[in-house]
Parts: sequence; structure tokens; C-alpha cells
Amino acid sequence: MDKQRYLQRTQDGLWLTEDEKENLKLSYRVRDVLFEEQSPFQHVMVLDSYDFGPMLVLDGVVQTTSVDGHIYNEMLAHMPLTLHPAPRRVLIIGGGDCGVAKEAAKYDVVETIDLVEIDEAVVRACRKHMPEVSGGEHPDPRIRHHYSDGVEFVKGRQGEYDVIIVDSSDPVGPAEQLFSSAFYRDLHAALDEGGLMVCQSQSPIFHRDVMLRTWERIGSLFPHVRMYTAVVPTYPGGLWSFTLGSKRPLPAPEEIRFDKEAFYVNENVLRASFALPAFLEKLIRERGGK
Amino acid sequence: MDKQRYLQRTQDGLWLTEDEKENLKLSYRVRDVLFEEQSPFQHVMVLDSYDFGPMLVLDGVVQTTSVDGHIYNEMLAHMPLTLHPAPRRVLIIGGGDCGVAKEAAKYDVVETIDLVEIDEAVVRACRKHMPEVSGGEHPDPRIRHHYSDGVEFVKGRQGEYDVIIVDSSDPVGPAEQLFSSAFYRDLHAALDEGGLMVCQSQSPIFHRDVMLRTWERIGSLFPHVRMYTAVVPTYPGGLWSFTLGSKRPLPAPEEIRFDKEAFYVNENVLRASFALPAFLEKLIRERGGK
Repeated sequence: MDKQRYLQRTQDGLWLTEDEKENLKLSYRVRDVLFEEQSPFQHVMVLDSYDFGPMLVLDGVVQTTSVDGHIYNEMLAHMPLTLHPAPRRVLIIGGGDCGVAKEAAKYDVVETIDLVEIDEAVVRACRKHMPEVSGGEHPDPRIRHHYSDGVEFVKGRQGEYDVIIVDSSDPVGPAEQLFSSAFYRDLHAALDEGGLMVCQSQSPIFHRDVMLRTWERIGSLFPHVRMYTAVVPTYPGGLWSFTLGSKRPLPAPEEIRFDKEAFYVNENVLRASFALPAFLEKLIRERGGK
Repeated sequence: MDKQRYLQRTQDGLWLTEDEKENLKLSYRVRDVLFEEQSPFQHVMVLDSYDFGPMLVLDGVVQTTSVDGHIYNEMLAHMPLTLHPAPRRVLIIGGGDCGVAKEAAKYDVVETIDLVEIDEAVVRACRKHMPEVSGGEHPDPRIRHHYSDGVEFVKGRQGEYDVIIVDSSDPVGPAEQLFSSAFYRDLHAALDEGGLMVCQSQSPIFHRDVMLRTWERIGSLFPHVRMYTAVVPTYPGGLWSFTLGSKRPLPAPEEIRFDKEAFYVNENVLRASFALPAFLEKLIRERGGK
């Protein structure tokens, strides 16, 4: 079995050691392998870990965990859906753990949620083994699954969406295109007149170049651009950035209203997440913050 | 040499593997050992790591790093010093990396900074090899080093300080007393009439019991208690809590003014850090938040 490439059994039990970073390795002790499959795209596992509960692991790298995955998903979903006054048509690119879609379904005004995840195995694994994140095996009927390439999916679409959420993995390999100017142009075209988009734009500390490039690319397309931050699960360094691009003016943070039930997000957290650390505010200003 | 207990040389180079947690291990690739000494209290190293720059390592566990240690130190120092209208006499318990003392020295109104760190080797190592954190080998003359046990240092003191900052390590072994009710009572007595204290109160996700116990103990002694959060460096999970206890009423977050130069903290960040995540606000409310 391929999992032997990623898991080691020691006298302490079973361990997953992430091997993607050159200078840093994380090892998680796990109780059990809940799901394992080699999909056409990647090696997919759900591991029952001791400290983080069930976690989604792609090609040996932890993507999200049951203990803290909601922080990222809630911050990515609720910000654009709260800022848009009537987000009827929502598109999610990536997001195979279904957590962003689950949060989007909390809005009565939302009519359709197109979830474009290339790998059906990821969706199946998370729906079955990570219900706290995915919402389980009986999702809201407004969620429409499209198992296709997000970059291809948005090409040629004109004004079809009110909100687009890009829930990508790191910009290496297949996800690299999800950080390209051409892709952002397609997203801009696919948004209706008053539409807005958001993407995760990596760590301000460890991926400064990617973050600033994303900021500039989105800023060159949209008249209104804003950055916010949150803690990111299971990543040393903690801080993570998100970039919003909007065709309509955005309300000031203190005007934000939020009344959904969520684990992490509330009205104050949404407002506060625009308070950028001093070094980050300076970086953004130097790159032409709006 | 004792460092062989903590460092392994592989074909990829030299690695430090933290072994303190039962279910999670972090390994850092390091260029060089900048400092190593077995003090009377612990094994002290400064390692030059690839991703985090020089890092302080005690008994094989990373305490602070040059890349992101300033986040924790600035959040711990500037909040109480900004909330108190005239913090003339400052006491820091622990904080041997000298980062909190360095930040406290940015306030002209501060007259004395008593820094009570039990282990002189930690101070010497950080002053020499981590100047970005410690401020270097020629510290502000208002900083007075006391190489003694913080618990003993505060016993019997009456009204001698305006601000007390507890910069402790985790509540295991010697640091356990720094989370005890008896210690907080001594701090309360050592504070002047309008004085306030702050301590790090661990992760809201992974150390919920310690955090809530700290909240209750400080809340039972001080008429005004408040919690704030920040990202914590080099710890998976990201979120960290700090608890303030004050003898004087605290200003509302939006009344906070801050005009110092800092890397991470600014006025908006200080205000925003009181915006507690939904689950944390609920926990605090259940335990009698004020």
C-alpha cells in the first residue's frame, strides 16, 4: 500500500511525517487510517490523529484537520458573503473538504453554490470521515458538485456569479495556475457587476513574494482591494493572509454585521481581521495599497 | 557534548527534533550551533535555523525565534504598557530572551524595568546571539537584571510596581508555580493601587483547562479582567491567549492609543486583539466573564 510511503510505525505508534518543506518537518501521531486511495490526481488519506482529530492528507501533506480547519474555512467563507449585500450565486474553486460550501449554505439568500473540486476522492473522503468540516454525507441541496479543473471551469464565463471564493492549496504544481493573472482575469469576468472575489494569499512571513504578487494582480483588476488575516491551522508561524477584490465599494470594518452561528467567526472577529500588523501594513502601502 | 541528545546529523544536514509533545514532533534544519551550555537549570542552545533564523532552545524545545519572536514579545509588552496611563515601575517575571524588556524600554515614562530571570545563561545567550529579539549586548540602563526565582522575588512586596508582565514558559516543571493562585496573590499585592498585570495563558484550543483556570484565578483577585489573543510563533494551531488583571478600570479597545515603533503591533492590532473568537467568548462567558 502506498501509505507506507508516508506513514512509519515506531515503538510509540503510527506517525505521519510531512516531508514537503526543505527546512521544517512536522510529525503527527495517528490512531488509524480512516481512508486511503490513489486518485488520478494525488494520494488521498484521512488519518485519525491524536491531537487534531481526523485530518485530510494529500500526497503526505496535511491540508485540514477536524480540530482547527473551521478557522480557515469560516474566515474564507463568511467575509465575502457578509460583505456582499445579496450573494445569490456563489462559486467555490477548490475547497474539496466542503467546509467553505457548508458555511456558505448558512445564508438564506444564497441560491446556488457551485463547488469546483478536481478530485472527487477528496470530496468523498471528507464527506464520510470529516463531517465536522464537510457537513457530512447529506449536503445542502443548493451545493452543486463539479469535478473539474477550476481554471477551465471559469474560462469564458460572463457575470454569472456574485461571490467567488478561491480555496486553493499552495502555489506549487497544479495549484500554481490558481495564482496567475490570467485566472484572476477570468474570475473578474465571471463576476456580476457588483461581484467580489476572495483568495487565500499565503503567509505574510514565509511567502511574502506570493502574497504581494497576489495583492498586486488583484489590485490591478479590481477597483477595490483589501487584505485581512487570520491564524492558520497546523502551520508554524501562525499568521495567514486573504485578499479580497471587489467591483463594488466595500463597507468599513465597523459597518460589518454578522448574525450566523459559527465556531470561530463572529462580528468582532470579522471586523478585527482587517487590522493588519505593522510590518504588513507597511509592505502593502509600499505596493500601492488602496 | 550534550547537544548530541537533541541534534541529529542526516544526509540533509543538521536537525533539531523537539520531543516534548506526545503526539506531535517538529524538526528544524539548522546551519550551526551558535551557543551551547548546560546551566544549573537547563540545557541552553542558540541554533541558527534555516527558516526561523537564530532560535533559543531550552532542554531541546524551541522557545523563541528571530523571525517571529517579536509577535509574542510585542503583544505581551505593549498591551499593559499602553493600558496603564503612567507605567513608571515595571516588573518582568521570566522573559530571559530580553525581548519584553526591550519593548518596555520604548516608553519614556518607564523609570525602572526589573527583569527577574532565573537563568543567567539564557540572558547571556540571547544578548549575544539574538540581538533582533533581545536588543543586543548594550541594553537600556533602566533594565535591572535579577537572576533569581520569580516566585520568591515577588513574595512580601507591597505596591512596588505599576505593571507586572509574566513571560513564563509552559506550566510544567519549574514554571508550574507561575500559574498558581498563591503566585497571583503575591503579584496582586506587589502592584500599586492602579496597577495591572498580564500573563500568557496558553492556547485556547490545546490548553483550554490551563487557560480557563488562569482566567478564573486572575478574575477572582482583580476587579477588572480581560483576555486578548495573538498568533503564536512556531506552534501549530496558531492562536494564543493572554490574560490581563487590573486594579483600575480598563479603557475600551477603541480608546487605545499607541504611537511606538514596532514590527508587529500597531494601534489597530492592539484594539483588534480583544475581538475573541466565538467559541472562546462563549467559554469565557460561561466561566463568569466580566
